[in-house]
Amino acid sequence: MNKVYIDKLSGHVNKEVQINGWLYNSRSSGKIAFLMVRDGSGIIQGVVSKSDVSEEVFTSIGDLTQESSLSIIGKIVEDSRSESGYEMHVSDIIIHQIADEYPISLKEHGTSFLMDNRHLWVRSKKQNAILRIRHTIIKACRDFLDNNDFILVDTPIFTPTSCEGTSNLFETDYFGRVAYLAQSGQLYSEATAVSLGRVYCFGPTFRAEKSKTRRHLTEFWMVEPEVAYADLNDNMELAERFVAYIVERVLEIRKEELKIIDRDTSKLENVVPPFPRISYTDAVEKLNSSGHKFEWGDDFGGEDETVLAELFDKPVLVHRYPAAIKAFYMKRDENDEKLALGVDMLAPEGYGEIIGGGQREDDYDTILKRLKEHKLSEKDFKWYLDLRRYGSVPHSGFGMGIERAVAWICGLKHIRETIPFPRTTHRLEP
Amino acid sequence: MNKVYIDKLSGHVNKEVQINGWLYNSRSSGKIAFLMVRDGSGIIQGVVSKSDVSEEVFTSIGDLTQESSLSIIGKIVEDSRSESGYEMHVSDIIIHQIADEYPISLKEHGTSFLMDNRHLWVRSKKQNAILRIRHTIIKACRDFLDNNDFILVDTPIFTPTSCEGTSNLFETDYFGRVAYLAQSGQLYSEATAVSLGRVYCFGPTFRAEKSKTRRHLTEFWMVEPEVAYADLNDNMELAERFVAYIVERVLEIRKEELKIIDRDTSKLENVVPPFPRISYTDAVEKLNSSGHKFEWGDDFGGEDETVLAELFDKPVLVHRYPAAIKAFYMKRDENDEKLALGVDMLAPEGYGEIIGGGQREDDYDTILKRLKEHKLSEKDFKWYLDLRRYGSVPHSGFGMGIERAVAWICGLKHIRETIPFPRTTHRLEP
Repeated sequence: MNKVYIDKLSGHVNKEVQINGWLYNSRSSGKIAFLMVRDGSGIIQGVVSKSDVSEEVFTSIGDLTQESSLSIIGKIVEDSRSESGYEMHVSDIIIHQIADEYPISLKEHGTSFLMDNRHLWVRSKKQNAILRIRHTIIKACRDFLDNNDFILVDTPIFTPTSCEGTSNLFETDYFGRVAYLAQSGQLYSEATAVSLGRVYCFGPTFRAEKSKTRRHLTEFWMVEPEVAYADLNDNMELAERFVAYIVERVLEIRKEELKIIDRDTSKLENVVPPFPRISYTDAVEKLNSSGHKFEWGDDFGGEDETVLAELFDKPVLVHRYPAAIKAFYMKRDENDEKLALGVDMLAPEGYGEIIGGGQREDDYDTILKRLKEHKLSEKDFKWYLDLRRYGSVPHSGFGMGIERAVAWICGLKHIRETIPFPRTTHRLEP
Repeated sequence: MNKVYIDKLSGHVNKEVQINGWLYNSRSSGKIAFLMVRDGSGIIQGVVSKSDVSEEVFTSIGDLTQESSLSIIGKIVEDSRSESGYEMHVSDIIIHQIADEYPISLKEHGTSFLMDNRHLWVRSKKQNAILRIRHTIIKACRDFLDNNDFILVDTPIFTPTSCEGTSNLFETDYFGRVAYLAQSGQLYSEATAVSLGRVYCFGPTFRAEKSKTRRHLTEFWMVEPEVAYADLNDNMELAERFVAYIVERVLEIRKEELKIIDRDTSKLENVVPPFPRISYTDAVEKLNSSGHKFEWGDDFGGEDETVLAELFDKPVLVHRYPAAIKAFYMKRDENDEKLALGVDMLAPEGYGEIIGGGQREDDYDTILKRLKEHKLSEKDFKWYLDLRRYGSVPHSGFGMGIERAVAWICGLKHIRETIPFPRTTHRLEP
């Protein structure tokens, strides 16, 4: 028997096939039963007429519970009313396991209960759709960079030093030494960009922040391109093309899934370059003039970002931040030493920062001075200083947090649904 | 001026362009200088005639040291003798930075020195080529799975429990609790495979093994597909197609790089399905009959794998291992309870295990019994047991270690050159 997936039925119309899956829902009258079966690729209705199957098989339908595993065998017919476009006229059923009473019914449950049962919750239609969109977002990130001749260069998770204090770092005993779990691969990518020109790293990153907000995870994925011979403007242009491509791909490939999660796609269709660009200083002015008090020199909090992002209907690039609130490696604006050549991209609809990056300082003496100002050890950063001794060039890059991008593109209120098994300050299970 | 990369010169013959890069090597007579410039995408020779450039520019060439950053501007001409197929008749040079005396010359250096300078060593021709091949191997893994309708589902790094004892685990303080760094995403992928049918995870994994061998890293990347409704045979077939595809892609895309690292590609061209399949029991017999003493029931060590793999000229699939040496979740052979339905793939040319996997136990009572036998807590694995309560199905999967695959495909003696910044028991830097 030809085993097929539900999303590949178009080539099997009027043919007998076998579908392996799980019972999603069912209803039955005396002589006919309707089985909604999901197989991971889609959902199909199997129509079982008492007259078409053995008595034993028809009787066994009564035993089937939600999420029981079964194979249905029968002829595929077109059915324009159904979600998949097809239904099956079932001629046989193989039951693999009758499931215990499934804890997640099709009605509403509390979030904490669903999170405790995340290993089962991922089977629901909406969570399944989000995971598919996540897959497509990640694939689009990689495709964009690969197609633009970037080379993936994985950076280490175990690192011997921290560049922004150790308070937000997870640490581990590394054969008698302390190793920190990486918050970013950037510093390493600066080294490999000199080898390969255009590189990216893409891996999990870790922050031990205690802040319990709907935007924070302790473990999240980040994609970070880094380009040699690129300045802040090149960087902004790259970020813009990158995000536009991702949104375009999701709109193209995940139409069905966006419908399942009720996403208003008109807002996404608007995400086309050019994106507005605004300096930090102008942003502060805009905030104040719109009645939202904010002092020049402060860092934007989630609330400030939300207000700011809501002033635009596309992602907005905010550039040239006060150097005092930015990392030691950020290059200063040659026109104003108080400013760093950093850029953040804020997503619309109140989602706030999804990208952070900028042009890196490329002068040896300046980096050395900054290390001292930030009380960082010259010895620990010797290798990083080497990059400014041997063929230093202007270079730039950014990092995009995958879960924040998924939250925005899917229109989710809370980041916990953007990743298969979220880790927060209070959650390490399942 | 049109800025172009060296690997994109074919469209710019007889045109004036700018190439941004670093000086790889140079030689000069009184009236003509030859600059070998690398830009990350390739190497080109720039020919500078004294009569074609300003006196200032020609004089400045004398200052250029290895790895100095510079832009060369001039006309691209075809040159069949050169590596890139082109050379540049230079009309102008912009020097960005004169590099300090570069520690890595083109002559040989000791490994420990090169590893200490890994951030610079990655610029060398050979390391650059290995990183490109690594990129292509990873892309091929993803492309194969994506093209076969697998969905990427990232599994967590922070996990609350261990499934094979804690001695080889790195741990971290997780807000007052202990979290372990994942050695594998498999258990989680078993949950998501029920949601999506065919899934894979692909991330860094961690092992605190003290074993200091040329095959071990403490941090390495692993790709792990998992398929619902798949048995051991399906799994072996998938692994075989997967590996064959990866090798095929590398041979196709990375010809130049394989030449740079002197790889004998005839051995790789042979990696075409079907691969030989042999049971553990037969493998033990083969070892003994070839004069290599080995006792049934023991686990293969690196040396045993090497001897075994050398008996074949393709990767070999060894299946059905003694259950006693395999993990609790492995399904037993219904024909012989002493055997587990596991499979390892050993790479030829003495490279040993690159893949490990098998069919998973899908019966609730059996898993519960195994947990007890392995002294694992039923409570910790409640979520995993749930997968056997709610729609359990036969399912299988495997994991491929990226660095071992890179070592084999590149023909490298030591695993440390397969990853940008290797982490071993004694190395956490740079």
